[in-house]
Amino acid sequence: MNKQNRRKFIAMAGLLSAGSAASAFPFNKAKNKRIVIHHVLFWLKNPGSKENLDKLIAGLKTLRKIETVRKIYIGVPASTEIRPVIDSTYSASEILLFDDLARQKAYQDHPIHKKFIENCSGLWEKVIVYDSIDV
Amino acid sequence: MNKQNRRKFIAMAGLLSAGSAASAFPFNKAKNKRIVIHHVLFWLKNPGSKENLDKLIAGLKTLRKIETVRKIYIGVPASTEIRPVIDSTYSASEILLFDDLARQKAYQDHPIHKKFIENCSGLWEKVIVYDSIDV
Repeated sequence: MNKQNRRKFIAMAGLLSAGSAASAFPFNKAKNKRIVIHHVLFWLKNPGSKENLDKLIAGLKTLRKIETVRKIYIGVPASTEIRPVIDSTYSASEILLFDDLARQKAYQDHPIHKKFIENCSGLWEKVIVYDSIDV
Repeated sequence: MNKQNRRKFIAMAGLLSAGSAASAFPFNKAKNKRIVIHHVLFWLKNPGSKENLDKLIAGLKTLRKIETVRKIYIGVPASTEIRPVIDSTYSASEILLFDDLARQKAYQDHPIHKKFIENCSGLWEKVIVYDSIDV
């Protein structure tokens, strides 16, 4: 490569890296944020009913569409060791990440969230929520 | 750019993208994985002691160094609404993400984790663990 083309290459390579940086922005943006984590555990009225669990999980999946949700993890108890401190009696777990408290509040008030409660709250007998914020 | 240099540029640009893909690998890799989430809530013996809380949080931060930990969130109760379903009586929360159950097990058995328990278990009076796996 001659000097002129080398310069062109460096310029184009620069554009390529700029492109990568732009697409990584949502990750970088949050680096200095204090992430808010909203963890909800659900105990079904009929824990043996696969149909009820599927309905709850389908309902939880609709929550992905709420714009202020940064990340959502929907799970069931994992088959880790059995230890007295591990509570694996729940039916489903929902872990939501938000960039701040205002976005968590917007999620609570969102029509999709309200619809989920309307459609699914008859399925569970108990819910525990842990809201935490990064230190 | 002449044809030869254009070819060189394309080859080098290819290497650059290969480089980006390699560094993004840990993210891409997990897309089809069923993430395992290990959530531990700690209740301190002396919940009013900032010193004890700081010591626990410093201990939790050492866990970041364990290679199989994909992501760690260390938090305290967030000032969301007060609702009967929200439990904000705990002192600290630790949420760990793993790519699979084997990596979670490796974390449990890791010397850094054992050292943390040795140094900090005297601080807490209660621990609850929820282990879940993505559906």
